[in-house]
Amino acid sequence: MAEIKRINTGQRMSQAVVHDGLVWLAGQCGTAGESITAQTEESLAKIERLLTQAGSEKSRILSTTIWLADMDDYDAMNAVWDAWIPPGAAPARACGESRLAGTGYDVEIICVAALK
Amino acid sequence: MAEIKRINTGQRMSQAVVHDGLVWLAGQCGTAGESITAQTEESLAKIERLLTQAGSEKSRILSTTIWLADMDDYDAMNAVWDAWIPPGAAPARACGESRLAGTGYDVEIICVAALK
Amino acid sequence: MAEIKRINTGQRMSQAVVHDGLVWLAGQCGTAGESITAQTEESLAKIERLLTQAGSEKSRILSTTIWLADMDDYDAMNAVWDAWIPPGAAPARACGESRLAGTGYDVEIICVAALK
Repeated sequence: MAEIKRINTGQRMSQAVVHDGLVWLAGQCGTAGESITAQTEESLAKIERLLTQAGSEKSRILSTTIWLADMDDYDAMNAVWDAWIPPGAAPARACGESRLAGTGYDVEIICVAALK
Repeated sequence: MAEIKRINTGQRMSQAVVHDGLVWLAGQCGTAGESITAQTEESLAKIERLLTQAGSEKSRILSTTIWLADMDDYDAMNAVWDAWIPPGAAPARACGESRLAGTGYDVEIICVAALK
Repeated sequence: MAEIKRINTGQRMSQAVVHDGLVWLAGQCGTAGESITAQTEESLAKIERLLTQAGSEKSRILSTTIWLADMDDYDAMNAVWDAWIPPGAAPARACGESRLAGTGYDVEIICVAALK
């Protein structure tokens, strides 16, 4: 039975869970009330740190789900996303609109990645 | 080629699908029209039964997505969730607002877990 | 470290990512403005092509997430879905309502499948 390793674990959730060559990340948000650009940058920075802690990296993300509180933020979010993704290493992706937990959160990004 | 085992299979979906050490669960709901507390409890009870059938358990959930029809139910859902999660075994998690299939459904919970 | 193979890769996303016996698909949509029936059919045809390219097939889908821009399209989407799924091979599934990226898109379907 493959071991489960949890990173930044609380009673409600772990920020990352590692099992059998994959790492599953909790949805990452930026700071409520900031611009969509700043929130996307902060979410991706958190993802990058968690991937490093787990033994992965952003070029090994397999699948990403992005929730926007307002789909009108799509282009601004993508400008940050497109610059962050290493060329040739883009994951499968889906982006939908969903009101998020907590007022002022505009974007939440969920990733599954392969370990190095 | 790793075998696929399906649990509670219909023409539209299986309630659980087991493959190569993981079990993927269909979104689980409670009974339409009941309180958010009762719906969350029933959803989690269904998840626990399916995990047992699959050869897993709630301490081995890797990732969970929670959809609330109304984000105002966030605290009431979390009260049930937080008490249900074994200490130290919380999965990665994301929670968004989404209108669900069928009137009166307030919460749907989707899990991926590791087999024992 | 297991190899990652990407299919139809752009700067923003890959349409499919293969790793360690699984293929993760990007959310697939039909043509904006067409009927929900036509959009569902086109989405599923794209999924079938990508699964073939990846070395999988629709009978090996493990988990599916379906986003409808309007939950009132649930029955029309399901009529196409139910006919498309090979008997006895239905995946785990969840379906929620989410406004999609781009005007006129009514359904987006996200799959994870096992390779053959």
